Amino acid sequence: MTPQEAAAFLTAHDNYLILTHVRPDGDTIGCGAGLCRALRQIGKTAYILENPEITDLYTGYVEGLTIRAEPVGCTVVSVDIASRSLFTDLAQPYLDRVDLAIDHHPSQEFFAKATCLDSKRAACGQLVLEIVKQFADITPEIGEALYVAISTDCGCFQYSNTDASAHRAAAELMESGFDPYPVNRKLFRTKTFKRLKLESMLTAGMELRDGGATALVFLTRKMIEEVGAGEGDMDNISAFVGQIEGVKNGVTLKETGDGHVKISLRTDPGDLNASRVCALLGGGGHAAAAGAMMEGTMEDVRQAVIGAMKQVRNG
Amino acid sequence: MTPQEAAAFLTAHDNYLILTHVRPDGDTIGCGAGLCRALRQIGKTAYILENPEITDLYTGYVEGLTIRAEPVGCTVVSVDIASRSLFTDLAQPYLDRVDLAIDHHPSQEFFAKATCLDSKRAACGQLVLEIVKQFADITPEIGEALYVAISTDCGCFQYSNTDASAHRAAAELMESGFDPYPVNRKLFRTKTFKRLKLESMLTAGMELRDGGATALVFLTRKMIEEVGAGEGDMDNISAFVGQIEGVKNGVTLKETGDGHVKISLRTDPGDLNASRVCALLGGGGHAAAAGAMMEGTMEDVRQAVIGAMKQVRNG
Repeated sequence: MTPQEAAAFLTAHDNYLILTHVRPDGDTIGCGAGLCRALRQIGKTAYILENPEITDLYTGYVEGLTIRAEPVGCTVVSVDIASRSLFTDLAQPYLDRVDLAIDHHPSQEFFAKATCLDSKRAACGQLVLEIVKQFADITPEIGEALYVAISTDCGCFQYSNTDASAHRAAAELMESGFDPYPVNRKLFRTKTFKRLKLESMLTAGMELRDGGATALVFLTRKMIEEVGAGEGDMDNISAFVGQIEGVKNGVTLKETGDGHVKISLRTDPGDLNASRVCALLGGGGHAAAAGAMMEGTMEDVRQAVIGAMKQVRNG
Repeated sequence: MTPQEAAAFLTAHDNYLILTHVRPDGDTIGCGAGLCRALRQIGKTAYILENPEITDLYTGYVEGLTIRAEPVGCTVVSVDIASRSLFTDLAQPYLDRVDLAIDHHPSQEFFAKATCLDSKRAACGQLVLEIVKQFADITPEIGEALYVAISTDCGCFQYSNTDASAHRAAAELMESGFDPYPVNRKLFRTKTFKRLKLESMLTAGMELRDGGATALVFLTRKMIEEVGAGEGDMDNISAFVGQIEGVKNGVTLKETGDGHVKISLRTDPGDLNASRVCALLGGGGHAAAAGAMMEGTMEDVRQAVIGAMKQVRNG
């Protein structure tokens, strides 16, 4: 579906339930909030399905928009969800009932009856903007929600996915009249004290390889418990390692507490394709940022990641 | 002068000498480089006057563009310079000889024969873009130089001066074809490993007071020596403590190594006036950021600062 067709679909139906993905980020939440408000603006009934994993950073954006129970005969729309494996527990009843998936991931698995996909967009928020502006006014609230979507997914216009169209979308959203300064401050310039303590621990335990071009950090349950960190304190912590001068490939390994380790890989895509590395480990993502989940100890997973990086580099 | 008139002036003259300001930042250097390349593209002779204070971050942008000696009968253009007090030592001979000043500061003092000023622009680079695109193609090199100008002056689109027009200019420049990722990475996302180690140490020794509204960090000679940190690793380190959630007043104390401690205070000026606190300690500054230098041990100075903060707060 093109954005035009998606807009036609959305204006033709009603009673919307919007799904966001597990470990919700700014893009999925911002898209959900922006789409929900746009649908309500044109008189539709629309809710976002509650996402229990939402962090403090984003709860404000879905206030008054969420629902826990399933509306009868609802039209289900997913935003920024690439595959069924990214459905939350509450969304399990909708695995085969998504009417429209709006997404920007190249790894989109086409689980929905219809899909509006643009894998060239840095953020799903850009696609939602293209869709909703065809039937709704971009109010300050919609503008802020979609700005959160776009700015978080491109690291406030610093990641390699940032292109001219991301800046043009940001310009268009700013003209809706919301105040971007407190949003930027909260999202990009504020850290909790617990977060700083975790970063200290990551620095202390950092492993540098390939003459400093590769850095690995290890986030253990012990560290998380010692600091008393919540999910919000660990939001986007996989970006931490990539900021070190000279580091092209940053690996963040995090113990989940149930015998698994979550792998996040951020690379300079000219040097190493993160998506190909993570595909070897059972995961996926983008060329510059990908992830996977593996069973095993931190040391098992560390060796598996180092092996997969070598394999992609040599072949 | 309007940007159109400035473009007409630049195409009508020749033999350009471009001036940048003292303590050069990305805006003045990026404007100088972008303008110089645009003038050369249309066959003009153009140079940037050497700026001895330029830092490593920006030297690459002026390579092959600078000159030390004065060309005979040159046309002098200043970029991002608001007043004569901001002329470098090498630029002193041109104090009364500037033909065209291009600037965006509201404090512009109109020292030049003609001035092209737009104080609504977040960066002077936006104005230079408007001017040069009227007579030159925006090549990747010009695009990158002006992107550096704009992105640094608005804190990579995070400061409160960022508006829709700054994003639109960034979009236009990106379409010139340069690769913004390494630029953003170098300017906004890179910390030395030594810097991270210092930040870890500051976090470990941080003192939180007033229920977390006040934070003090202590940078000792021992830490600096242990890490082997140079001045570059400590650049703007007094901003570190201010990023913590809930902290309104951040104090950074740094041992100078000669029996003194340097005090940097960053405050939420609605909560505490930093300048009044530092005045009590023999220093000064602005309401939101001030400093002082005191003789004594770290502990002496810590108590003096806490005392001065109490005194100002109690009236």
